[in-house]
Amino acid sequence: MAEILEKELSERMAWLRAELKRRSLDGFVVPRADAHLGEYVAADCERLAWLTGFSGSAGMAVVLTARAAIFVDGRYTLQVRDQVAEGLFEFRHLTEQPADEWVAAHMSAGQVLGADPWLHSERQIETLRAAVKNAGASLVLQEDNPIDAIWTGRPPPPASPVVAHPLEYAGVPAADKRTQAAAGIAKQGADAVVLSMPDSIAWLLNVRGRDVPTSPLPLSFAVLRADGSVQWFLAPAKADAALRAHIGNGVAIHDPGDLGPVLDDLGAAGKTVLTDPSGSAAWIIERLRAAGAALVSGADPCQLPKACKNPVELAGTRAAHDRDGKALVRFLAWLDREAEARAQAGNPILELEAVEKLLSFRGEAALFQGSSFDTISGAGPNGAIVHYRAGLSSNRPLGLGELYLVDSGGQYLDGTTDVTRTLAIGAPTAEMRDRFTRVLKGHIALARARFPEGTTGSQLDALARYALWQAGLDYDHGTGHGVGSYLNVHEGPQRIVKTPNATALQPGMIVSNEPGYYKTGAYGIRIENLVAVIESPAKSPDEKDMLAFETLTLAPIERRLIDTALLNPEETAWLDAYHARVRAAHSAGLDAETAAWLKGATAPLGSGGVAE
Amino acid sequence: MAEILEKELSERMAWLRAELKRRSLDGFVVPRADAHLGEYVAADCERLAWLTGFSGSAGMAVVLTARAAIFVDGRYTLQVRDQVAEGLFEFRHLTEQPADEWVAAHMSAGQVLGADPWLHSERQIETLRAAVKNAGASLVLQEDNPIDAIWTGRPPPPASPVVAHPLEYAGVPAADKRTQAAAGIAKQGADAVVLSMPDSIAWLLNVRGRDVPTSPLPLSFAVLRADGSVQWFLAPAKADAALRAHIGNGVAIHDPGDLGPVLDDLGAAGKTVLTDPSGSAAWIIERLRAAGAALVSGADPCQLPKACKNPVELAGTRAAHDRDGKALVRFLAWLDREAEARAQAGNPILELEAVEKLLSFRGEAALFQGSSFDTISGAGPNGAIVHYRAGLSSNRPLGLGELYLVDSGGQYLDGTTDVTRTLAIGAPTAEMRDRFTRVLKGHIALARARFPEGTTGSQLDALARYALWQAGLDYDHGTGHGVGSYLNVHEGPQRIVKTPNATALQPGMIVSNEPGYYKTGAYGIRIENLVAVIESPAKSPDEKDMLAFETLTLAPIERRLIDTALLNPEETAWLDAYHARVRAAHSAGLDAETAAWLKGATAPLGSGGVAE
Repeated sequence: MAEILEKELSERMAWLRAELKRRSLDGFVVPRADAHLGEYVAADCERLAWLTGFSGSAGMAVVLTARAAIFVDGRYTLQVRDQVAEGLFEFRHLTEQPADEWVAAHMSAGQVLGADPWLHSERQIETLRAAVKNAGASLVLQEDNPIDAIWTGRPPPPASPVVAHPLEYAGVPAADKRTQAAAGIAKQGADAVVLSMPDSIAWLLNVRGRDVPTSPLPLSFAVLRADGSVQWFLAPAKADAALRAHIGNGVAIHDPGDLGPVLDDLGAAGKTVLTDPSGSAAWIIERLRAAGAALVSGADPCQLPKACKNPVELAGTRAAHDRDGKALVRFLAWLDREAEARAQAGNPILELEAVEKLLSFRGEAALFQGSSFDTISGAGPNGAIVHYRAGLSSNRPLGLGELYLVDSGGQYLDGTTDVTRTLAIGAPTAEMRDRFTRVLKGHIALARARFPEGTTGSQLDALARYALWQAGLDYDHGTGHGVGSYLNVHEGPQRIVKTPNATALQPGMIVSNEPGYYKTGAYGIRIENLVAVIESPAKSPDEKDMLAFETLTLAPIERRLIDTALLNPEETAWLDAYHARVRAAHSAGLDAETAAWLKGATAPLGSGGVAE
Repeated sequence: MAEILEKELSERMAWLRAELKRRSLDGFVVPRADAHLGEYVAADCERLAWLTGFSGSAGMAVVLTARAAIFVDGRYTLQVRDQVAEGLFEFRHLTEQPADEWVAAHMSAGQVLGADPWLHSERQIETLRAAVKNAGASLVLQEDNPIDAIWTGRPPPPASPVVAHPLEYAGVPAADKRTQAAAGIAKQGADAVVLSMPDSIAWLLNVRGRDVPTSPLPLSFAVLRADGSVQWFLAPAKADAALRAHIGNGVAIHDPGDLGPVLDDLGAAGKTVLTDPSGSAAWIIERLRAAGAALVSGADPCQLPKACKNPVELAGTRAAHDRDGKALVRFLAWLDREAEARAQAGNPILELEAVEKLLSFRGEAALFQGSSFDTISGAGPNGAIVHYRAGLSSNRPLGLGELYLVDSGGQYLDGTTDVTRTLAIGAPTAEMRDRFTRVLKGHIALARARFPEGTTGSQLDALARYALWQAGLDYDHGTGHGVGSYLNVHEGPQRIVKTPNATALQPGMIVSNEPGYYKTGAYGIRIENLVAVIESPAKSPDEKDMLAFETLTLAPIERRLIDTALLNPEETAWLDAYHARVRAAHSAGLDAETAAWLKGATAPLGSGGVAE
C-alpha cells in the first residue's frame, strides 16, 4: 500500500483512540454497516473503509487501546492484505476467528468496549456482550458514533429524490402488496412490523431511489401495520408531489427523526411488534422494548413475496437479460477480436479499459440505469481475488496465456442482471481447461436440475461442487444468491450455499448459478448465469410435479476453455442447446460482424466454430 | 384385516377407555416407545402394537373418549392401513398432520389428556402441553401407564444376561472410552450426564446383551461423571461374575430402582447435569429439575465417538462384510438358479422361504449372531411398501416379470451389516430398468463422491436423488443412516437426508447408501451398500485433502436391471470396478457353482456375463 495512505490511516487510528479515551472507552467496534444492516452502504456510513482502507462489502474492525484487528471472510482474505496496513491491524477470518473470541482474549477486567447500536443487530450485540463479559469487561452502547466526531470531510447523507417504480415494471400495485404483507404480520401474531431493509420498503411501495451506488434504493425505515397502513420515515425533501401522489392513501411520510417516538407510541399502546433479531438494528429493538412493546421475532414479511417475482417482473427480467446479453456479446466479440492481437503487439487491453468498454455497450441498451455492482475485471492472478476491483494502481493487462474473469451486471428499469464469463487470452493450459470444464460441469448440473417442491438451495449446492470435489478442488463462496427486480443484486431469503438455508426455492425466485475455481497467484474461473425457478409439470402419471431452473442470462460460454472429453453427453447437449438459444435470442439486433462472431462462439461443441 | 383380530382390538380400546375413565382422563397418548426413546423396543413395551395392531418401528396413537387417531410416517402409510382397523383409528401423517394439531382440534375445554413421562422427551411433552392448552384442556403425567393395568398376558421385561464385548472387536478399552466421554461432559460445563440410550452404554462399557430383537442391547440407564466413573442401573441378575470382572473399577452396578434417588442426590449436591432434551425421557429431566440440579442441554457425549469407528472396528466390519457378502452371494445365486424356473413350473419361491434361505446362509458364517433387523422380502407390489415385513397372511410368490426387493443384515461379533438388492424374476420391463438405473446412478454418485471436511450428509443427499428428480421421481425416505459396530443398525448422529443434519461426516463413520424408487401397487427398487467415511489425501499441491466413501458391502448388483445406455462412462467404470472387487473378495470360500455364477454376475457391463 502507498506510504502516504498508511500515514493517514495511522493518524485516523490515533484520532479514534483519543476520542475513545475522551469517552472513557477502551475499545470500539467498527462494522461495515449502516442502520439498515444491509450490504448497500452510503458513503457517509463507510466508516470501516475510512478507518482501515478496506473497501470490501463485509467486514468488521475492533480497535482496542494497544491493538486492533480487522475481520473479513474468505472472499476478502487477499484484498484485505492489499488494502490494510498490517502494522495497524491484525488480520482475522470473520467466521472462523470471530471478533467476539478476539475481544474476549484481548480485553481485561474492568475495561469498557463501545458499540453503536444502530450498526449491529440485537443478536450481534448479545454476542459482543457475552464476549466482553467473559473478559470481565463491559459493553456500553454509544448515543452517537465516535468516528463521526473525528471524520473530517465526511460526506453528507444521501438525499436523492425517490421516484415511482411504475406498474408496467412492478406488476402489482403497492396497495395490494401492503395488503399481502399485512396478512403476513397478522399471521405471525403481530400488530405491526418495523421495516429496516430499504429494498423491502422499495418493493412494498413500488418506489426506487439513488441513495447508494449500484442499487436503486431510497434509504428509509417504515412501520407497516396489520391493517396495511404504512408510516414511512423519509427525509421530506426526497419526496416530491408526484411521489406523494404515487404512494396514495394509506402511506404517511414522516420525518426520519419521528421513528423513535412512533416506536414509543407502539409500546405505549401495548402493541405486539414483529422484528427480525438478526435484521433490525439493536437500537430499534431496545427502543421498542423500553417503550413496553411486546416483541415477536420473525422474518420481514416483504422478503418472501419480494423474492417470488410476479409474471410482469419475470417478463421484465427476460427482456432485460435479452438486452444485457446483446451488450455482453458485443463486448465478448470485441475482446475476442482485440485482446490476443493487442497483447501480441505489446499494447494489451487493460482491466479498466475492459470495464469501460463493457459499460459503454450496456449504456446503449434501452432502460439501462447503471451497473448493478462494481464490475470485477480480473486478468491472470487478479481473477483469483474473488471480489477484485481493478483500480489505477492495479490495472493489469490482459496478458497472453492468461485467463480473464469479468463479473458484471446492469440495473434496468425492468430487471437486474449479474453475469460472469471467463475468457482465455491466447492459448490456455490443459490445467486451465480441466478446471474450467469442472466448473462448467457444476454449472450445468445445477442448471439442469429438477427438484421437488420444498427443496432448499442448501440441498442443491453440492451439485455445483461435485466435479471439483472429485479433483480435490472447491471454491470458498456460495453457489447462488437471490437477485432483485430492478433492486438489489444480492437479496434473500433463498440462497444456494453449503450452510443450511431454511427457505425452499419457489417459483418466481431468481438466483445466480455461479460455481468457480481460484488458483491464488495464477487465475480465477467463474461461470455465472442467473436462473429463475419455474414449474416443471409431471410428464406422466408416475411423475410428480417438480420445480426447475430457467436460465435467464444469454451470452456464450468460452468454448476454448472446454475440455470436451470431460463432458458427458447430457452436459454437451445442455451446452449446445444453451448456445443455440443464445444465438437465436440475438439473431436480430446485432451488427453483422458481431452476429458472425456469435455464430462461431455458439457453434455446437466439436463442430468447429471458434478454435477449440 | 382378520375380523377376529379387529374384535379383540376393539375390546382393548374399550378396556383402555374404561381405565382412562377410572383415572378421570379424557384421553391418552400411546407412542411407540420405551423409556430409552429409541427404535429398539422390548416386547413388554410394545404398547402401541398391542393396542392398535400396528407393528412399525415408529408411530403414535392418541385415544380420546369418542375418537382416536394413529400417526405414522411415509414409510408406513400403506402398512398402517393393512394392520389397523379404520373403524377404530383415523390415519394421520406423523409429521405433516402432527398429533398436537389433532389433539388441539379434538379436545375440549376442561378435558384432561394423560401421558406417560417415561415414553416422551421433554420436548414432546412441551409440544403436547401447548396443544392441550390451545384447546383449553390440560395434560396430566401418569405415574404408571394405564395400558399396563389392562394388558393381560403382558410379556415380562427382558432379563437376558449382559456379556463382555471383547477388546479384539471393541478396539478401545472401556476405561479409555470413559475418560474420553467424561472429557466431553466437562467440555459442556457439566458434572455428569444421564445416559438413556442403551447403545451409548453398550459402547461405553464394551458390553452387549439380548434384551431386544435384532440389536445386541442390554437395556439400562447410566450416570457418567466428569471423573469418568459410572453408576450403571442394571437388574443385578443380568450381571454375572465374569461381567463384573470385565467392567472393572470405576463402574458400579445399581438396582434400576436407584436411578431416581441418584438423580435426587445430584440435585441435592448442586451438580450440573447434561441432558438431551429430545433424547431423555421427560421423567428424568423432571426428576433432576425437582431435585434442584442445574441442567445443561447437549448431545449424549458417547454418540459422536461411537459413530467414528476405531481401526479395530473398521477392520472388523470389513471382515464381517466379507463373510456377509459370501452368504448373500450364495443366496443370490440360489435365487437366480431357482426363482424363474420355479415360477414357470408353478411352484414359485415365496417371500418367507427366501427369508429363511438367506438366514440359513448367514447362519453358516463365522461370528454370526442373528439378523440385524427383520428382513424385508418384498415381491412385486410388496417391494413398494418401504418397511414391508412378510407374514403368513402376506407371503407373496416371487412371480415372473416382477421385481423382488430384499433388505437384510446380520449381526456379527465384529460388525453389523445392512444390504438391499433388487432382483428381476424373469424379464423386467423397460420402465423397471429405467427406474433401477436411475436409482443406481444416484447410488454411484454418492459412492464416488469426494467432499471436504465439514460436509454433512444433508449436503450430499441430493446427489443420490438427482437422476430420479430429472425424471420427476423421488423416494420418501432418507438416503443414509449411521450403522453401529455389532450394535444398532440405525444409529446417529450423522444422516444423509433432505432435512438439515448438523453433524459433519467424519472418518470412521459408517453410513448406508440406499436410494430407491417405489411404484405403489407395482414394485419397489432399492440399492443399498454400507460405506465408511475415509480420508482421501490430496494428489497434488493444488488439491485439498478430501473425505470419501469406502464401500463395505460386497455383493453383485443386478446387471439385468441396468439400462447401460443411461450410464455415463464414469458410472460404468465404477460399477465394473465394484463388481471386480466383489469377485476378487469372494474368489476363495465359495463352492464352484456359486463361484461360476458370481463370475457372470460381476462381469463388466456390455461383456456378456448374465443376460443383460
